[in-house]
Order: sequence, then C-alpha cells, then structure tokens
Amino acid sequence: MNDNSLKEKEILEAARNRFAHYGFSKVTMEEIASDVGMGKASLYYYFPTKEDLFKSVINKEQNLFAEEIEKLVGRKISAENKLKNYVKKRLEFFHELVNLSTLNVNTFVDLKLLFKELFEDFEKKELQLLQRILDEGKMNGEFDSRLRHETTLTFLHLLQGLRLRMIKFIKDNRMERGNYDELRVEMTVFVEIFIKGIKA
Amino acid sequence: MNDNSLKEKEILEAARNRFAHYGFSKVTMEEIASDVGMGKASLYYYFPTKEDLFKSVINKEQNLFAEEIEKLVGRKISAENKLKNYVKKRLEFFHELVNLSTLNVNTFVDLKLLFKELFEDFEKKELQLLQRILDEGKMNGEFDSRLRHETTLTFLHLLQGLRLRMIKFIKDNRMERGNYDELRVEMTVFVEIFIKGIKA
Repeated sequence: MNDNSLKEKEILEAARNRFAHYGFSKVTMEEIASDVGMGKASLYYYFPTKEDLFKSVINKEQNLFAEEIEKLVGRKISAENKLKNYVKKRLEFFHELVNLSTLNVNTFVDLKLLFKELFEDFEKKELQLLQRILDEGKMNGEFDSRLRHETTLTFLHLLQGLRLRMIKFIKDNRMERGNYDELRVEMTVFVEIFIKGIKA
Repeated sequence: MNDNSLKEKEILEAARNRFAHYGFSKVTMEEIASDVGMGKASLYYYFPTKEDLFKSVINKEQNLFAEEIEKLVGRKISAENKLKNYVKKRLEFFHELVNLSTLNVNTFVDLKLLFKELFEDFEKKELQLLQRILDEGKMNGEFDSRLRHETTLTFLHLLQGLRLRMIKFIKDNRMERGNYDELRVEMTVFVEIFIKGIKA
C-alpha cells in the first residue's frame, strides 16, 4: 500500500465511525479531517464532496460483505447451509449499514440517487454469488435441477422486499432492535420454506 | 338502500372514475359534485374533505377485494389452488388500485398516513383470510401441520415486500405494464416454491 491509499483507508475508517455515531447529515468534513490529522483542503483532495466520501464508505462495506460471502460460497458445506448462512449474514450486514446511513431520515431521501447506483452494482454482485450457490445445489443434487431461471432473482427480491417493507411501515423508517428480531424470524421462516420448496 | 346511501354510492363511483383518470391531486370536489348533479356544499355534507372521499373509495375497493377472496376461500378447490388464486387476484387488485392513487407521485407521500391506516385494517383482513386457507390445507393434509405460526404473516409480508420493492426501484414509482409482467413472474415463481415448501 502506498501513502495515498493508506491515507485513504484511514479517512474511510474515520468517516465510517463518524457516520455511524452521528449520521450522515450531522457529520462535517472538518471533523473527519481533524480525526485523521489533516486540513480540510487535503481531505477534499481525496474526496471532493461529503457524498463522495459517504459513497466510498458504503462501497467499502459492500465489498467486505461480498468478500465474506465469496468465502462462504467456497466452503465445503451443503448449498442449503450456504443459503441459510447467506441470509443470516445479509441481515447482519444491513443492520450495520443502516446505522451508518439513516440516523437522519431525510438523509435517505437526499441520498436516494447515490444509493440507487451503489445498490444496483451490489445487486449484480449478490446475484452472481446467489447463482453460484443455487447452481452448486442443482449440480450436487440438493436442489431441483428444473428450477426456473428467475428463481435466483426472485429469491433476492423477496429478501430485499421483506426488509424494505418493514422499513417502510415503521416509525420514522428507523429499524429498532424489536424490528430486527421480527425481521430475523420472518427471514428464518422464509428461508426454511424456500429451501424445502427448491429441494430435489 | 335509503336515499342517502344511494347518493353516497353514486358519489363513490363518480369519484373512483375521476381519480382513476386524473389522479387524486388533479381532481376537485366541484368536478365530482357536478358529475353526480349536486352542489359542492351538498357533497361536503357526505364527505367533509377530498381525503375522506378518497379514503372511502379505497376502502370500498378493499372491501370488494376481501369479498372476492371470501368467495374464493369458500370454494371447493384445494387449499393450494386457493393460495395461487389469491396471489393472482391480489396482484390484479393492486394493479387497479395503483391507477386510482399514484398518477401523481406526491400524492402518495401526502396520503401516506391516510394509507397507513387503511392498509393496517386491510392487512388484518388479509391475514384472517390467508390463515383460513393455510389452516384448511393443514386440516385436509395438503400442508405440513407443523408449520410455524409466523408462516401466514411472513407469506403476506413477502407478497407486500415484492411489490413495494419494485415500486421503490422504478422510475417515479410508477408501475408500467412491463413492471407488472415482471412482478407477475416473480409472484408465480415465489408461490410455486412456497407451496412446495409448505406441503405435507
């Protein structure tokens, strides 16, 4: 790692902590610059806007999650267990991510376009990983080999939908511990039924 | 039916047509009053605000849908087919409903609270009907009798989520024909897998 990318890493970590504690809208570039001992002007050299910085923070989190799932896909366990673990880790991932981003409700609306782009790329990555798990299960005889090709996309959309639906209907769109417990139960019920439904 | 409830029915039909063609925000109480040949003041006697009128229109549609599902639940077909038909009819119902309500995007935001109330009641009704279908399937041996009690709620939330997720990610939150075709495929894939997953 060269000096620049080391510095960038340091900035991302400081920004991540700030966003997690105070939410996107309350954090200033000055504070982040001060955290890593640099001037505001220098920080802008790395990240021209707070939005750019935030985007990089989220993107880094998404990449870490994708790497974790890559590892999971490579493990010598059944495709069924990979799928179950994937759903569990995904729920934890979004739990973390929400802390970073939606402490302030308006933030989410302001950043919708920015998020859209980030999440479209992320969805592609998730689809590839999920496809690998389903294909593996079909190949090794765990899953029904005649599954419709829309199954992977539908599965991911069901996961997304279950989460979004809950966020939409709760107060201020803020997920509390109780909501997560509820969501975890629903995800578990769903995955159990889904896996039985795609079995060979 | 007395004169008052006849008049009310007439107003609701006129309002439904107006909302369906022009969207909530563009329709005026004057126009609706004129459609049914009454003065604006008389219309306000039945419905004090346009929001009240709109709420009654939606509520009526929801009741019609619930009645249709009541009939479906009473039919002598398998619980599996009831569930499949339910999902199909539900998709059609929301397709119709969206035409009434979201011709103007801002409308949906303005009416969020109003919708919330309406949809909470509707969710209770839907849950009861779905529970009857699942219970019937458990009783007659079609479905696994050990299904978790959260299954009904999770099933409904998955249906809601799949729809909301799509609305969230499309341009202007307006569902086009292509989006419906896509949603129909996803619903079909989901229901097939879900039914297989809950079978005895």
